[in-house]
Amino acid sequence: MPYKETYPSQLLSEAVEAISSLPGVGRRSALRLALHLLKQPAENVHHFTDAIDHLRDDACYCRRCRMISDDELCSICADRSRDQRTICVVESVRDVMSIEATGQYHGVYHVLGGIISPLGGVGPSDLTIKELCERVAQLEDPSSAEIILALSGDVEGETTAFYIYRQVEASGIRVSSLARGLGFGDDLEYADTLTLGRSIVNRQEFRP
Amino acid sequence: MPYKETYPSQLLSEAVEAISSLPGVGRRSALRLALHLLKQPAENVHHFTDAIDHLRDDACYCRRCRMISDDELCSICADRSRDQRTICVVESVRDVMSIEATGQYHGVYHVLGGIISPLGGVGPSDLTIKELCERVAQLEDPSSAEIILALSGDVEGETTAFYIYRQVEASGIRVSSLARGLGFGDDLEYADTLTLGRSIVNRQEFRP
Repeated sequence: MPYKETYPSQLLSEAVEAISSLPGVGRRSALRLALHLLKQPAENVHHFTDAIDHLRDDACYCRRCRMISDDELCSICADRSRDQRTICVVESVRDVMSIEATGQYHGVYHVLGGIISPLGGVGPSDLTIKELCERVAQLEDPSSAEIILALSGDVEGETTAFYIYRQVEASGIRVSSLARGLGFGDDLEYADTLTLGRSIVNRQEFRP
Repeated sequence: MPYKETYPSQLLSEAVEAISSLPGVGRRSALRLALHLLKQPAENVHHFTDAIDHLRDDACYCRRCRMISDDELCSICADRSRDQRTICVVESVRDVMSIEATGQYHGVYHVLGGIISPLGGVGPSDLTIKELCERVAQLEDPSSAEIILALSGDVEGETTAFYIYRQVEASGIRVSSLARGLGFGDDLEYADTLTLGRSIVNRQEFRP
């Protein structure tokens, strides 16, 4: 049943309108959040809105890897202790955070800013693939460097990976992709046949 | 498994911190929202934060019914066509909006700002019950006026209703509460016994 809205206040109505423009936030949740903010001390609310304004106004993208950054060069690209010749290609900043959280990777990144999706209207030129090719072209002795394609395992991810591979293969750079297989703790019985099949083909030496 | 967070940007980290302070918004959702806002045009983001700041800074509470209002007196209290001698007592602004949406009520409201909850640390003095008693005391000929207790049907709602009843009964004002019974479209078989029992005791004349 549609919920006819009669706001007691124009200010409330406008705040609800603004909050419900966020993805995944409906008008009822937006009203709940607006009433919550109204009850908070004014300085808390200003702190909240200032943090968002600052993010939008002052955050920029790293000129090398296109990750969100406070400076022209992000903290990872600026870190001399990281291997600048191993470039992990990811879809978004969230993927960078996921990989960083593992603590297992010591190279640098390249954030595509999306994934090739003909249905979604996203083509190669909408992503930072050109910038990636330029990075590869600037590498000394590319054959001893590596690109890791850390993209999702769906059709769009595979398409994007293949497209990037074709763009960089001439440079002679080594191109790898994430290992696919059974997750830790996964039950063999419930694994899908494609994953299980790949796990058998790409079996690894047992190292107890 | 706890998610170790390594934000690539201090600004992003602060925005996520701020957004996740909202009730029901976890840190992953907050990150998703922050990245969404980062992709929006700057003017949209400023419109979003301005709407929230304006709500917090400029909205006030109606001096009569304590509802959120843009003026000293809310649009309902200021409306001469509404019956100012029938006062519907509700817990929150959201309840006012729900009742207004029915289009069946033409009196005014009194917003308690919460409900008596000993476990939640909310006592009568935390609510606008004193203000309600003052409103009742200022009514001419209270015995021809009415208070409708539109509170939830749980223990806290009943406690609050009873407390208010005891505060105003001496004035002689008529006190009613919302009808309880089977909802429209409810299946008899699945109704709880308490509701069904009350529906039988408080049965109404059949008007086809």
